[in-house]
Amino acid sequence: MPTEKPTPALLTALREAVGEANVQTSSDELFVYECDGLTLDTATPGAVVFVHSTEEVAAVVRACHEASHPFVARGAGTGLSGGAVALHGAVVVETARMKRILELDLENRVALVEPGLVNLHLTRACAGKHLHYAPDPSSQGSCTIGGNVAENSGGPHTLKYGVTVNHVLGLEVVLPDGRVMEFGGPHGRGAGYDLTGLFVGSEGTFGIATKVWAKLTPNPETVKTLLAVFPSIDAASRAVSHVIARGIVPAALELIDRTIVRAVESWLHLGFPTDAGAVLLIELDGLRDGLDLLAERVMACCRLAECLEVRQARDEKERLLLWKARKQAFGAVGRLSPSYYVQDGVIPRSRLPEVLGRIQASAERHGLINANVFHAGDGNLHPLILFDERVPAQVEAALKCNEEILSAVIDAGGMLSGEHGIGLEKLRFMSRVFGEDDLEGMRRVREVFDPRYLANPGKAIPSRRCWEVKGHKPPAMRPPMRKQ
Amino acid sequence: MPTEKPTPALLTALREAVGEANVQTSSDELFVYECDGLTLDTATPGAVVFVHSTEEVAAVVRACHEASHPFVARGAGTGLSGGAVALHGAVVVETARMKRILELDLENRVALVEPGLVNLHLTRACAGKHLHYAPDPSSQGSCTIGGNVAENSGGPHTLKYGVTVNHVLGLEVVLPDGRVMEFGGPHGRGAGYDLTGLFVGSEGTFGIATKVWAKLTPNPETVKTLLAVFPSIDAASRAVSHVIARGIVPAALELIDRTIVRAVESWLHLGFPTDAGAVLLIELDGLRDGLDLLAERVMACCRLAECLEVRQARDEKERLLLWKARKQAFGAVGRLSPSYYVQDGVIPRSRLPEVLGRIQASAERHGLINANVFHAGDGNLHPLILFDERVPAQVEAALKCNEEILSAVIDAGGMLSGEHGIGLEKLRFMSRVFGEDDLEGMRRVREVFDPRYLANPGKAIPSRRCWEVKGHKPPAMRPPMRKQ
Repeated sequence: MPTEKPTPALLTALREAVGEANVQTSSDELFVYECDGLTLDTATPGAVVFVHSTEEVAAVVRACHEASHPFVARGAGTGLSGGAVALHGAVVVETARMKRILELDLENRVALVEPGLVNLHLTRACAGKHLHYAPDPSSQGSCTIGGNVAENSGGPHTLKYGVTVNHVLGLEVVLPDGRVMEFGGPHGRGAGYDLTGLFVGSEGTFGIATKVWAKLTPNPETVKTLLAVFPSIDAASRAVSHVIARGIVPAALELIDRTIVRAVESWLHLGFPTDAGAVLLIELDGLRDGLDLLAERVMACCRLAECLEVRQARDEKERLLLWKARKQAFGAVGRLSPSYYVQDGVIPRSRLPEVLGRIQASAERHGLINANVFHAGDGNLHPLILFDERVPAQVEAALKCNEEILSAVIDAGGMLSGEHGIGLEKLRFMSRVFGEDDLEGMRRVREVFDPRYLANPGKAIPSRRCWEVKGHKPPAMRPPMRKQ
Repeated sequence: MPTEKPTPALLTALREAVGEANVQTSSDELFVYECDGLTLDTATPGAVVFVHSTEEVAAVVRACHEASHPFVARGAGTGLSGGAVALHGAVVVETARMKRILELDLENRVALVEPGLVNLHLTRACAGKHLHYAPDPSSQGSCTIGGNVAENSGGPHTLKYGVTVNHVLGLEVVLPDGRVMEFGGPHGRGAGYDLTGLFVGSEGTFGIATKVWAKLTPNPETVKTLLAVFPSIDAASRAVSHVIARGIVPAALELIDRTIVRAVESWLHLGFPTDAGAVLLIELDGLRDGLDLLAERVMACCRLAECLEVRQARDEKERLLLWKARKQAFGAVGRLSPSYYVQDGVIPRSRLPEVLGRIQASAERHGLINANVFHAGDGNLHPLILFDERVPAQVEAALKCNEEILSAVIDAGGMLSGEHGIGLEKLRFMSRVFGEDDLEGMRRVREVFDPRYLANPGKAIPSRRCWEVKGHKPPAMRPPMRKQ
């Protein structure tokens, strides 16, 4: 599918669908939507359309379908794999204004929300009700539920509470031909195939979610947060293995390396030990009574791995500071370097030291700085490669390094992505972990929903369809699933 | 697809695939495979084939595919929705002999097993390692992992630990054209669409799982089991609501009504209170320290709902007796009645008293006995309707009652199945909870894997394809996903 501007007819249809004022086409307006959190990959959208309801989304998608023009949904644009980048002049369907909470059923612990709702705002809406929405990406203050659904987002508390797919009970979806369908519901699956689970993490290639049934999780009675300081990443990794081996499942188990600690410290002055090789941020939650004992055991695991120091946050204030350090880590890196590249491969915990070593060596070989802050408990790496976007040689080196990191992950029997998605960034690596048969199977599943590859083309799976590879037009429309 | 015997050519191909001795075709041999745990629905298989390896399964399926003959996988045949009934003279692929544990990776907590492995045997294989396989259907002593995968089985501990799909990280699958594919792997998903999650619960309509990557769960440090006795089901239901409302998540929260209690008691003499309206079996697990407090709180909830008595199992011996009562409940019902019908709809917990009342009324209206033993914590009902298969009028009444039960579930905004699957039993109800668009979407997904409806036809979703509805032959073969 070649990059092409929307036809005047399509633009007219879009304006009729959402109103003149909600369609942006000028280059300075479109510039804002050239990339998401993955700043290296950019593309200019054909247009940006602000939607306010399911009906508007359906009308916009129908217009694109009739014009055989691609589209891509976008929430806050915080994604890190280029999932929201508008390839082939796609029309950006901006859902940020669809941010209502339509239902909040506290008794059955479920909320019906629109896709543009900011993740953290759902938890805020439950304030005082002892409930929260569990998936907590570091960007939860700005990322949207719809984006989380597309990428099956996780967060530090994924270790105990699971990723987005474990917290979505049902969806209302606009299919790529403009029809509206419902998968699951307020009580989840129940019969038929699990299309909700299939849609979550499909990176916008099956259509656009317009309503989300989100599960609400009871708040733990007590939370304890520990800070453990280690001479090296290896020692910290050993502590992680000890904790997991004892069958302890912390709410969160985060590893932060020296580079990140120093960056955060020089910015926020939280009193982090800047001489440490690595620190572990360990959160335990549950009933008050059991928690002291559990904390004791976790601290014993840290000492067994020869930590330099391990202590509990003295009070809620310090606990929040520790988490601020973690959640601001990526931001702090911005003080070290104008740009960074982050991966999120998942590897067996037992291979942590080995793979982290390979990543470090790769960065050094390319003369770049590698920093690590990641979900150690579930082996979900977040190696950052720091570079200067303005220096072509560094960009090239960063890309090479990125390639070597993914190779190290694959060699360790790991997976390309834990929570950021494949997007367009890791697309060409898919054929290294999947056979052509597997990929073709995925294509066939995709074509059930999007036979013409109009929904976020060029993402998630390598489509290998001629109109994508050779830039031809998509095939003629297939009849809709049901004769209308 | 009409009922038809396998052609001599197909039988020859099957014998070549697995050997003469592993193909059964005589009527007395086939008789054994006429039904599964749902005894009302029977059909005679075209043949029964015992398989011992992925290669044999692939060869058998390929032979069926080339002969355009349907097939259905079968494990222990304990399913309760008729999922393993061989419609249209399907060839039964009996996996009971594929029961090896191929890998037991304790460090990364995952096992690679064959589909015929008995559920409980995986947990037994972990004895002394403080790990277990969490999904625990009441039939776990005989049901197979492969069957659990097909039906996405749950069990009493589903409330805290989730159903089968939450414990399966990857699959090796023989597709309906005989090709072997892998979904996910020892570390789970990672990239691409979640075909593992899609396959689990597809009731054999996508192909046959030949290897399963099963997650192993750490054993809790301590387990406490409480028995609470209530004057009525309503009071017991209120206690359930109180427990859940306080954010307490027991490992299991089972409701057993008077009829079941009496049946169990008259058989096993466990000292259950036969005058009770209902009892709750509540299991709590976790760290020793926190658990006493938690037990206190749960007991307070029971008292708040005016229980007659609530106590902890005195020792492990009594605890096992309580669970024996629960797990033998269905068996005990066999002493009350020659046959019973069991449903497993899921309803919002808040509607428990109302729906149970409607079920009771329906049974009385039809002059039948209704008994209840179910997963109250997650609203997963298991209403049993007792009848005598030898009395046609009772069979008819039972079927009418079954219809009214599912209607009550649907009216309460519930779901047709929590863990037993749709099978052929609930097939005709699918169109009451799903629109034609939804069903057509599911058909299209199915056709990605099984375009000719040869894999367990007539199950899970109403296919509405002419060769099923009008009994025509399936269409000509479509090219395989990849040119071979």
